[in-house]
Amino acid sequence: MRIDVVKSVLEASDTLAQENRDRLTAAGVLAINIMSAPGSGKTTLLQKTIPALLPGCRSAVLVGDLQTTRDAERLGDLGAPVVQINTGKGCHLSPAEIAEGIKHLDLDAIDVLFIENVGNMVCPAAFDLGEHARVILLSTPEGDDKVAKYPTLFQGAAAILLTKTDLAELLEYDRDQVRQDLSQINSVAPLMELSSKTGEGVDAWFAWLREQVTR
Amino acid sequence: MRIDVVKSVLEASDTLAQENRDRLTAAGVLAINIMSAPGSGKTTLLQKTIPALLPGCRSAVLVGDLQTTRDAERLGDLGAPVVQINTGKGCHLSPAEIAEGIKHLDLDAIDVLFIENVGNMVCPAAFDLGEHARVILLSTPEGDDKVAKYPTLFQGAAAILLTKTDLAELLEYDRDQVRQDLSQINSVAPLMELSSKTGEGVDAWFAWLREQVTR
Repeated sequence: MRIDVVKSVLEASDTLAQENRDRLTAAGVLAINIMSAPGSGKTTLLQKTIPALLPGCRSAVLVGDLQTTRDAERLGDLGAPVVQINTGKGCHLSPAEIAEGIKHLDLDAIDVLFIENVGNMVCPAAFDLGEHARVILLSTPEGDDKVAKYPTLFQGAAAILLTKTDLAELLEYDRDQVRQDLSQINSVAPLMELSSKTGEGVDAWFAWLREQVTR
Repeated sequence: MRIDVVKSVLEASDTLAQENRDRLTAAGVLAINIMSAPGSGKTTLLQKTIPALLPGCRSAVLVGDLQTTRDAERLGDLGAPVVQINTGKGCHLSPAEIAEGIKHLDLDAIDVLFIENVGNMVCPAAFDLGEHARVILLSTPEGDDKVAKYPTLFQGAAAILLTKTDLAELLEYDRDQVRQDLSQINSVAPLMELSSKTGEGVDAWFAWLREQVTR
C-alpha cells in the first residue's frame, strides 16, 4: 500500500510536468532547467546571458531557493521578468511550483524561460519540471571528480557547462578527467568551458542557446 | 493515515540515531558529522586532519557518496580505517547506514569518528545520524550568500569552517556578509577560517577538535 501512495505522487508530478511542457510549447517558449551544486555560478551566468540574447530572444526566469530573494534581486535589473520561488526546506523545485510561477509571466512576451533550480547535485535531477532541456553547471573549484560522483545529474543533460575556468590553472583542474568520466555517462551533450568573470567561452553558450530557441 | 506512516519512519530514524550515539559514547568515540556542498573540501581537510591528530587521537572515517570509492581511496593511506558508503541515488547518509558502517570498525581503537556526509547543503541537515557534533564547511568559491540561503544547515552546527581562504582575496569574498548572516542564524558556533592548501588557520581547527575529544 505504501508503494501505491509513492507511485501516485510521482505519477501526479510527471503529469503536472507534462502539462507545464505542453503549455510552454503551445506559447512558443523554450524552457531550460538549470541545475548545479550551490555556488557554481547559475545566477552570474544568467546575468550575462539575458542581455546577450536581446533583442532577438526575450528571457524570463523562475529562480528557486530555500530562503531569501537574493538571486531574484541580482537578476532584477536586466529587463526580464523574474519570479523567486522559496521552497522552505524543499531540496528541489517541483512541477507544481513551476505551474504557479508561470501564472506570474506573460508567456507571449517570452522566448526562453530559464528555471534556476535549487543548488543541489542530487534531488533536482529526479524531478521533471516540464522543461525542454536540462543544462548542468560544474564549476572548477568543486573539483574534477564530480561527474563520476553524481552521475544521475549529468545523464539527462542536453549541455554541460564547465564554469569558472579562470580558476582552472590555479586549481590544477584536470579537464581530461571530466571528459573521461563524461564519456561513460553522457557522450552526447556538448561540454562548454567558460568563465562568466572574464567572458571567455560564453559566446559558444549563447550560440548554443539561440540554436535551441530557433529550432 | 499517510501522516502516521511518515511519522513512524522519522521516529524509527531518530531511534536508530540515538542507538548509534549511545554505542559510540559507550565506546568513548566522539562522532563528528561533516556536511557541506559538493567540493567544499571535506576530504582534503580530513587528509590534513587525521595525521595531525596523531598519536594522541586516533581517527576513523565513514564516507558517503552516491557513487565511486574515490574519497575512500584518497583517505586510504593515512593509517586510519575508512569505510565508503555508497548511497546510490540517496541524497544523504542515514542512521541505518552509519549503524552498518560502524560494524566494520574496532571502536576500542578509535577516539574520533568522522562521518563525511554526501555533498549536499539541504537534505543531510534533516537527519540525525547519531553524531555528537555537526561541523559545516563553507568554501569561498561558493559565494558569500550561502548561510542566508541554506539556514537549516548552519543552525545545528557546533563549528563552521570557511575553507579555501587562499582564494578569498581573488574572489573578493565578503567575510562580513557571512558573519552578519550567521549572527541571525547561529551565534554560538565558532567560525574558523582556513586553507587546507596553504595550512593557514588549520591549527585552530585541530585545537578545537582535540578539545571536543578530551571533554
